[in-house]
Amino acid sequence: MKVTVKVPATIANIGPGFDCMGIAIPLYNEITVEEAVMPGSGIKINLVDYNDEPLDLNVPTDKNNIVYKAIELLYNFIGQSATDLVITIKTGIPVARGLGSSASVIVGGLVAANELLGKPADLDVLISIATEVEGHPDNIASALLGGFVLSSLEEDGSVVYKKIEWPKEWKLTVFIPDFELDTSISRSVLPETIPIKDAAFNIRRAAMLIDAIRTKDTELLKKSLQDKLHQPYRAKLIAGFDEIIKSIKNIEGVYGCVLSGAGPSILVISDEKSVNSFKEKINEIWLNLNVRCESETMNVDTVGTIVL
Amino acid sequence: MKVTVKVPATIANIGPGFDCMGIAIPLYNEITVEEAVMPGSGIKINLVDYNDEPLDLNVPTDKNNIVYKAIELLYNFIGQSATDLVITIKTGIPVARGLGSSASVIVGGLVAANELLGKPADLDVLISIATEVEGHPDNIASALLGGFVLSSLEEDGSVVYKKIEWPKEWKLTVFIPDFELDTSISRSVLPETIPIKDAAFNIRRAAMLIDAIRTKDTELLKKSLQDKLHQPYRAKLIAGFDEIIKSIKNIEGVYGCVLSGAGPSILVISDEKSVNSFKEKINEIWLNLNVRCESETMNVDTVGTIVL
Repeated sequence: MKVTVKVPATIANIGPGFDCMGIAIPLYNEITVEEAVMPGSGIKINLVDYNDEPLDLNVPTDKNNIVYKAIELLYNFIGQSATDLVITIKTGIPVARGLGSSASVIVGGLVAANELLGKPADLDVLISIATEVEGHPDNIASALLGGFVLSSLEEDGSVVYKKIEWPKEWKLTVFIPDFELDTSISRSVLPETIPIKDAAFNIRRAAMLIDAIRTKDTELLKKSLQDKLHQPYRAKLIAGFDEIIKSIKNIEGVYGCVLSGAGPSILVISDEKSVNSFKEKINEIWLNLNVRCESETMNVDTVGTIVL
Repeated sequence: MKVTVKVPATIANIGPGFDCMGIAIPLYNEITVEEAVMPGSGIKINLVDYNDEPLDLNVPTDKNNIVYKAIELLYNFIGQSATDLVITIKTGIPVARGLGSSASVIVGGLVAANELLGKPADLDVLISIATEVEGHPDNIASALLGGFVLSSLEEDGSVVYKKIEWPKEWKLTVFIPDFELDTSISRSVLPETIPIKDAAFNIRRAAMLIDAIRTKDTELLKKSLQDKLHQPYRAKLIAGFDEIIKSIKNIEGVYGCVLSGAGPSILVISDEKSVNSFKEKINEIWLNLNVRCESETMNVDTVGTIVL
């Protein structure tokens, strides 16, 4: 018995939507969960690249791995303990770049294990367990459902989520720099309290962003893609971010430039025509700071997690 | 030359939408602006009730009146000084109850004066001037446009606004208690800084509220109508508010209970059937605290400000 699932990368926050908005993009991890041949052999986690070559990423490969934690919670949900499993993670999503790689493997492990067990958990339960492991639902919900998803972790541990169709004309260009930024570090720079006027700034922009998407209102989109809640604090960890925002904001057809998740990757939302001009600017700014980056213009992944 | 306009009352905030959401309801002020017969007679402001009887409200009736301030800004906009004017405010909106009475007279005075002057200002300018006098655009924009309006005061002083159709099935019941609460007092109890997690709580709920309205999603509406930004601080000024929220939240068909603007009025959003049961509860709770209140179940005013 063996199940493989394919899970997209995700971009969370998207400007004003701190911890509650995410969008899936076509970069993928594949997670395979199989029952171990030898009973009593315990948990084994393999990390491989897309050519099935072993990867040496700095993550635990025992019970402390987040995938295993998620699977264990699923077994607990059906009143069992996780048995002997081999979990293989084929990594197509760069780690520690703000692209939801951890959410992706949590979701992948959970969905694969749920298939193995005969689907005891429905979508609500899967999202709730995955969010418990990840801490917030934005990457989780969009990785599972695909597309743009608005989500909220409620005080009772349940997760409210809603998929909203993303206009195809709004292109996503992701810039992935060659340095990593651990999410725990980029969370640690956030203050515990913020000015109430900054909160009000984000509240109205999150509301505007949702309405912009629902009504394909590009002018409103441009006004909405700003943030005072996390980007100003995280910008100091990401060389060149402020300069990049400033240098491309007046290019016609650029709707906004935001951190991808907690960074360091950057997302530009734009029309198709403007892509070359801002790509050049961003590459140049980062090159001057000795940062190399990969960039790609993508459509949204609208499918989310699938069982292969 | 004499122009009279009719302006609705408005309910701002609506739970999570601090300073950026408002909805117009069918209670009205009528504002008449006319050129004074005698040149050099200055500014005269009359306050009357709906039977044209003079009212003694505790507001300035000279150049310090907010209506006059707004009109003066309009004259400045066209490079003139406000001349001798008689402004009559026929008051159908209770004052200092969180129902946007100040926004209503500002908007009324402005629109009437703009008509008198041959419409030099367009809607954007009117909203911007009115917001400058009022301080925030939520009541202003919904009083002008009618219906539910999302608005944002930008850093350059301009106002972004968007009208969003409110589902007719979602009834508004407004409870107006017999005590006043000055907006300056209910603003003074707000802290300058708030926990970032409370900001995140409101951000996702403001986003959910917009999507709920756009897609008529009653379940999402119920989750969205909560607030941690202003209501917890203002509740202590409004006897019974916490008890009211608690006592009606499990009544079937009640979608939410929020402060109207800065209070003390309360708005319940519900289906039609549940109205009688929560009305009784709220009246009872307030009566036990020696608060009398008027309550009315209304449809939204979808028209906004009109010239009579």
